Amino acid sequence: MNIGVFDSGFGGLTVLRALLDRVPTANYHYLGDSARLPYGSKSPRTVAHYAASSARYLVDHGADLLVIACNTASALALDAIRESVPQPVIGVIEPGAAAAAHASHTKRVCVVATHATIASRAYTLALAAHGIDSEEKACPLLVPLVEEGWIDHPVTQQVLRIYLDELAAQCAHSWSDGMPPDAIVLGCTHYPLLKPLFSRLLPRGMHLIDSADAVADEVATVAATFAPSQPADGPATPPHHPTNLRFSATDSLEKFRTLGQRFLGRSIRQVELITLPE
Amino acid sequence: MNIGVFDSGFGGLTVLRALLDRVPTANYHYLGDSARLPYGSKSPRTVAHYAASSARYLVDHGADLLVIACNTASALALDAIRESVPQPVIGVIEPGAAAAAHASHTKRVCVVATHATIASRAYTLALAAHGIDSEEKACPLLVPLVEEGWIDHPVTQQVLRIYLDELAAQCAHSWSDGMPPDAIVLGCTHYPLLKPLFSRLLPRGMHLIDSADAVADEVATVAATFAPSQPADGPATPPHHPTNLRFSATDSLEKFRTLGQRFLGRSIRQVELITLPE
Repeated sequence: MNIGVFDSGFGGLTVLRALLDRVPTANYHYLGDSARLPYGSKSPRTVAHYAASSARYLVDHGADLLVIACNTASALALDAIRESVPQPVIGVIEPGAAAAAHASHTKRVCVVATHATIASRAYTLALAAHGIDSEEKACPLLVPLVEEGWIDHPVTQQVLRIYLDELAAQCAHSWSDGMPPDAIVLGCTHYPLLKPLFSRLLPRGMHLIDSADAVADEVATVAATFAPSQPADGPATPPHHPTNLRFSATDSLEKFRTLGQRFLGRSIRQVELITLPE
Repeated sequence: MNIGVFDSGFGGLTVLRALLDRVPTANYHYLGDSARLPYGSKSPRTVAHYAASSARYLVDHGADLLVIACNTASALALDAIRESVPQPVIGVIEPGAAAAAHASHTKRVCVVATHATIASRAYTLALAAHGIDSEEKACPLLVPLVEEGWIDHPVTQQVLRIYLDELAAQCAHSWSDGMPPDAIVLGCTHYPLLKPLFSRLLPRGMHLIDSADAVADEVATVAATFAPSQPADGPATPPHHPTNLRFSATDSLEKFRTLGQRFLGRSIRQVELITLPE
């Protein structure tokens, strides 16, 4: 089967990485709408417009199933995307919320993400549907720090400490009975690269929820309802070597390749430049 | 006369601020193409395409003269913009380079800017035309730090110190005769908000060049060649209260208003949402 994976840039490659591990036999077409990134600072109307045109592009190029590997687009535009194509569409918010609900015993969860994702209240609502209370915090500097390559850098640690201290103060204010949150959702696909830093700074016993793994599980479930994949040509390929891995981007191919490898954890040989219909 | 001022967001409001001081009798129409910001990480082709459509919009709405208050667009797209409209177009690179050349005695100048501006070598060439050698440094974290409001913040000071130390090492390597640079160009319209921090960290005797002032001088010169302004209505308005100040943006009006005021140094009451023809 053909899985289309969409993000505003290359952050969603952390989701593709989890998908390649979990559903290695599928064909993947990854589309990074890098000409219009970041989505995190844009309005819902604009994000929905951009995301729907990207979704249609992937479907027009053969996708049987779409993964919206972008928290902002999932938060602001999932319904708009589902309305724009007949194929099944999986976002990152609901699987991440479900995984957090599963991990939490205190039923109190923290979320860190971009301004737009937090402002959308998508995680608040998705977590509430699982009976979970949440406290959320926009951390807009983490994406540029990751893109600067300052992954394990004193400045990034200092910035993350400031954000986590502010989040802890929010929690103490909202939950004055002393019952602590016990899970935190990384609500942005750039953040998994900062997992070691988060682990170092978070209190003991706090579960770190990376939506990518949860999304991969859901995709595996949905993928199982499709006819088995036919390899594109030649004999069956072994697992962990997908038959077909295709990358398209709307801008900055060199940046996509260079930074993208860090997110995907493997080299990216070819990226095709495309223009999306407006 | 009607002056159209264009930027990818609200950074160019630091240029508008200088223009309002220097040419207070003109009418101003500021266009922030915030739906597609930041330009700094995009390819020359994309930036030229976006900037030309913004320029045409301002001219279609009455601009007699255009100011490209965006270093990236000036660096990558000034010729494309000039080809797309018949009106005079002033960018920020050449006036900034001229001001630096005027200030420097050692004929060695540093430039800090976004990745795209540095990669374009626009400052290198503009300074070389004035007989100036330059060393340049991309400082991609400064824009998000300014937009987070961390203007006089220990983290911003630490980041700026890292960038300036790296730049000093570059200079020591390139100019091993010990003759130091004596001017630094703030090659991004966000950076003027960090002037106090720059002043604190730069070596004594280093001139800080803010292109905004140089652009305002050039606009005053060109504006003087036009017929005198007619106030839009009513009696003549006193200086420092322009007859007409109009703001348009392609996205995120609230963010434009909130952050923009910090850049303009006065309140922004109304911003009109527009859609640019692609």
